[in-house]
Formats: sequence, C-alpha cells, structure tokens
Amino acid sequence: MSLPDTYRALTSTVGEDGQLRMEMVERPMPTPKNDQVLIRVEAAPINPSDHGVMFGYSDMSFATNDDGALIAPVPEAGMRMMKGRIGQALPIGNEGAGTVVAAGDSDAAQALMGKTVAAMGGGMYAEYRVVPVMQVLPLGDDHTARQGASSFVNPLTALCFPETMRQEGHSAIVHTAAASNLGQMLVKICKADDIPLVNIVRREEQAEILRNIGASHIINSSDEDFIPQLIDAVHETGATLAFDATGGGRLASDILTAMEAAAARTPGAYSIYGSIHHKQVYLYGALDPSPTTLTRGYGMAWGVGGWLLPNFLAKAGMETAIRLRQRVASELTTTFASHYTDEISLDDALKADIVARYNAKKTGEKFLVNPTL
Amino acid sequence: MSLPDTYRALTSTVGEDGQLRMEMVERPMPTPKNDQVLIRVEAAPINPSDHGVMFGYSDMSFATNDDGALIAPVPEAGMRMMKGRIGQALPIGNEGAGTVVAAGDSDAAQALMGKTVAAMGGGMYAEYRVVPVMQVLPLGDDHTARQGASSFVNPLTALCFPETMRQEGHSAIVHTAAASNLGQMLVKICKADDIPLVNIVRREEQAEILRNIGASHIINSSDEDFIPQLIDAVHETGATLAFDATGGGRLASDILTAMEAAAARTPGAYSIYGSIHHKQVYLYGALDPSPTTLTRGYGMAWGVGGWLLPNFLAKAGMETAIRLRQRVASELTTTFASHYTDEISLDDALKADIVARYNAKKTGEKFLVNPTL
Repeated sequence: MSLPDTYRALTSTVGEDGQLRMEMVERPMPTPKNDQVLIRVEAAPINPSDHGVMFGYSDMSFATNDDGALIAPVPEAGMRMMKGRIGQALPIGNEGAGTVVAAGDSDAAQALMGKTVAAMGGGMYAEYRVVPVMQVLPLGDDHTARQGASSFVNPLTALCFPETMRQEGHSAIVHTAAASNLGQMLVKICKADDIPLVNIVRREEQAEILRNIGASHIINSSDEDFIPQLIDAVHETGATLAFDATGGGRLASDILTAMEAAAARTPGAYSIYGSIHHKQVYLYGALDPSPTTLTRGYGMAWGVGGWLLPNFLAKAGMETAIRLRQRVASELTTTFASHYTDEISLDDALKADIVARYNAKKTGEKFLVNPTL
Repeated sequence: MSLPDTYRALTSTVGEDGQLRMEMVERPMPTPKNDQVLIRVEAAPINPSDHGVMFGYSDMSFATNDDGALIAPVPEAGMRMMKGRIGQALPIGNEGAGTVVAAGDSDAAQALMGKTVAAMGGGMYAEYRVVPVMQVLPLGDDHTARQGASSFVNPLTALCFPETMRQEGHSAIVHTAAASNLGQMLVKICKADDIPLVNIVRREEQAEILRNIGASHIINSSDEDFIPQLIDAVHETGATLAFDATGGGRLASDILTAMEAAAARTPGAYSIYGSIHHKQVYLYGALDPSPTTLTRGYGMAWGVGGWLLPNFLAKAGMETAIRLRQRVASELTTTFASHYTDEISLDDALKADIVARYNAKKTGEKFLVNPTL
C-alpha cells in the first residue's frame, strides 16, 4: 500500500499577539519505528476534555474564521494562564480509531497490520498518526472505527470511578451531569457491578434518558426540593464519594452538605466537628468554569480535588489499566457504545459556526471527526 | 485529702428558643473508677478550637449576660446547623492541666496520685474532671499546671503537620496565620527537623515575631506583591502541602495557584492539565468563616480538605501518638512553651465584655482559665 508524502492535521496555537489560532497544517508522513504503528485515522470524537487544548482560555464568543483557520481573542488573564504554551502548535484530539497502514519491525507492531484499532495518543484530529503499540487497543474483527473511536476517555473514566471508590474505601457514588455519554456508561457499569449510584441531572429530559436505561436514583437539581431529595438518596445509598463534571459553582459543596446531613441521621454523640467518615468530591470536568464555592458546613472530614484519568491510571498501575481496557473491548457495543449526532471533516472542525455548535457541550449532542471525509 | 461534695463547671446549651446559653452548673463530685484519675483543674487554655462548642453558630455580637449566664441569639441557619445539639448541656474546654487528687485502684492510676498532669478530655473549664489514665500526660516534676495546660491541641497539631507531610509524600510546608502560638511551635519543629517552611502572615508585627524566632521564609499577605513572593518561596522550598488556619476566602486557592506557578518554572512539556505532582491544602481552622473560593487555575492534581487532629491521630495509630506526646513532654518549656496574656476565673469566662475580648482571636493574645481563682 502506498502512502502519500504528507498528511493534514489540526493544531492549536496561542500567539504572542493574544490570539488563539486553530488551523490545518501539512506534515511529512512519518515512518513507524520498531514498536510503533501508523494509523489512518477514520474516527475521532470531540470530548469536553479536548476543548481545553483546542480553545484554552480564549474568548470563543468572538471566534471567527480567517483564511480557513479559526481565530479567537485571548483575554489578558487567559494569556497569563497559558504562558507555558505560547508559540507552540499543539496537536489536538485525544483519542480516535482507524486502520493500521504501516508498522515497525517488532512482532507486536507487525501483528497489527491492517487491523482496526483505537488509540489515545493525542493529535488524533489528523489523517494519520504514529503511536506506540502499547497505546493501541485492537478492536474486534466486526468492530468499525466509528464504534471504537471513543474507547478510552469516557469508558476508562467511567470504569475508574468505581476503582477509585474501592481504593479509597467508599461503597457508593454520586455523579453529576449524569445523563452524559460517560454518565450513561457509569449507570450500566454500576448496575452490572452492584454499586449504588446517585445520578444528578439538570433537566427532566436528562432524567428520562437515565430512567430508560434503568438508573435507580435520579435527582433533578432544578427541583425546588433538590437538597432534601439528595439527602434522602445519599442516606439510602450511603454514598460518601462524588464525581462532579461541572466543577464550578456550589454543586460540590451542596453534595458534601447532603452527605453530612445524611450522616447526621444516624444516631450518635453530637460532635461540633461533624461526622468522622471522610466525604470526598472529585471535580473531573469544568462544564461550569466559574470558581468553586465551598460553604464548609460539613465538619472537618471532607475533601475536594481534581481528578484526571491519566494521573489515576499512573497511580493504579499497568495491571489495572490492562484489565480495564479488556473490559472496554469486550463491552464495546453494549456498555460502552457511544452515539454521535454529527460527523464532520477536519475542515468542518475549523468552521466558526460548527465550532459554536460543538463547543456548546449540549447533553445528547456528540460530534465525531472523520479525517477521511 | 477531703474533697467537696460538688464542683462547678461551665456548659454551653443551644435551646429550642433559638438562644445559646453558656453557664455555670454545679455537679456532684465523681469518684474515679479503676483506671481513672480525678484532676483538680488549675489551668485550661481557650483555644480557637474551643470556640465552636462554646459559641457555635450564635451571633456573638449580640451576646449579653443574664443572671451570670452568657446568652446569645442563634440565627435560623445556625439553628439548622446545630440541630444535633439542641437541648444538650455540652461540657467545654478541650484541654488543661492540674493535680491528681484522687485515683482509681489500678497501679497506673495510683502512680499518678499527687502528680501534675495534663489532659485532653473535654470539659476542662471546671474545678474538677475525671479522665482515663490513657488520656493523661504526666508532666515533669518541675513543671507547673500553667506550663502544661496547652500540652495537647497546639503541640500535637504542630507535630502532626510534618507527620502528614511525610505520610503523603511532600517535603516542605506552607502555613498561614503563621505567627500564632501554634505557628511559632511549627517554626521551631521545622527548624529542628530541617523541614523547609513558608510562613504566611497578615501584618508586619507578625512577621517580626517570626523573624525573632529564626523563621526563614516569611511572607506578608498584605504586601502588594504577595503572590510573586509566595511563588518564589514555594519554588525555593518545593512546598506542595499547605495548612491553612483561615479556611474561608481565597487564600487556599492562592496557595495552589502559587504552587502551580512554581511547578511551571521547571522546564518540561506543556500540559493543559497542569503539573502532575499533587498539590494539597488542608483547612484546619476557620478564622475566616466566609465560604472558600477555589479558582481552579491549577490543573487537575490538587486537593483541598478539612484536617482535624483527632481524625489524623486515629489514622496514624497509637505508636505515633505516644511518640509525639513524649516529644511534647520533653520540650514543654522550649519548643512547646505557650504564653498567656490573660488569666481568668470560670466566672470571668462568662462575662460578656471578657468573652468579646477572647472571642476576637487576636494574634499574640491568649487566655487561660484558672478554675481555682
């Protein structure tokens, strides 16, 4: 099979001039080394976790197109936050899938020739991508690249929530933005693994999505009696761990308040310092970019912190990572099925009107980049 | 030695009527059981950590005296927070010291007869207090009750900061409200144990106190260039752990921002998700009762949480607790010397004008309750 001399890829650059520039670049076609394979990318999802590299702290409400590139102004504070990336053309697209069209000399690499594989290598919004064999997940023979495109970020994140729960001694989970693609996977995992899960959504349509896949505890944060409902659900499940995709505002604090109120229902001596069992909320997303506000009315045994998949996997070790990947591969079209509402080309991904749509991060909407279009 | 039939003690009660009432009660003199001793309390400090039980969520700006008792209104939100203690006359005073005037039959108890001891048993704002032998720290023969009154809360808290540091894999500490009694102990401990310590104060007089005891990194948060100074100090020391006594506002978030900025000075690949090394701020006090605000501009490897001495000691285990107590006893008049600006009687502790003074929690001011006055 003969390959072209060059390929096209998307990059994002913050310039000294205070502008973020997302654009198409042409790169020479690489030759895979010994333990590498070259993937022709056929499908790569746009995840909320991609937006950070793509748009950074630019003001996307002023995004425009300039000769095919996407341009957005960066406020002064944003420039300070992004000092470390000024002038660097960063590759974008965390994960994707496609066909192995060239392989290094090693047996492991050669064994993948012609196979459909998924990879989390970064730079997947590109026609081609070289990755080490170790970062590749071979898909089943009957799986398409589209089916395997989202094999890493959402499935592994959803699987790592119960892993975190077990490692840190909790027995149930609270999840926010629970009707998301990831949230639906978590519902299925927790059902299969018998883990009590409290799902927090913001709208009735989202509650409906979760009811349809058999979620038990669904709470709408727009309800007037949201907090009492949450306390009841936390009390019933015994959840002392939460994963919050919104990040900003008071939701994390409200969850801790509910956990403390639930703990107080169990009779015991009053302590001014609150319940002793540790209550933890991990912020794994930033759907709400405003500051996080903690009212601290929940004693002293609590924690709030960032949670990031690669950091967790690095601590959990290779054995865990392999076990979880195997589960993803074997449940790819059931538990971990992803649904896309839009399939776009690399060129489309730069168009301001299309960017505005996928940057809106609406529940139920999910974009797939297909570099072969 | 003959003991009176009753003794006087202070209690704090939140009533159904929405009032907090701190008052003197008369109790029958107890007889120590087998493994208990009866202490005649001669000195008990008023620590910030006592205020919670004493005043709870009442509005102390409206505190008045009523026939010897201290009365303060409790706002509706405060009543909700304190539902668990309504109607209970809670004993107050976490720690103190005095003379053992009666002992149970066990050898351990009998061995303490006549000795000057310290104890962290709660209810120490009282003329007498029965405690289990295990909760007692025998003082040196040449130590007075006044010298030993603060043997637990501040010394153990200060000692447990480096313990936490080692357990969680950090190598330096940032401390706020650093000129406090506890902060000065921490300066001495870190100097002796070669632990880099960054001290944050709010006023020049506080910086002066710390300079006089040989602290190296002292930063005034009132300085205009506070954040750049903090980044420099964090970078020099490599601190990724902080203990914050203020709790509210943006200080914890600013410390994390400084830690992230310091980490970014070490050249390496840019990551949108920030530095990988975990950055932690523990809130161990609430000098600022306003909500904690987290701007989250510090990547994903960070945590903020409550820190409470008894919870930490319970996890650390008996061996650690004994080792730390022994160090307190042997350095009682050096590292762990406490200075009191006011010595008051039990009756004084109820007087609204005196309460207003010790409730102000001014750096450098420290009150000692002497129930024998």
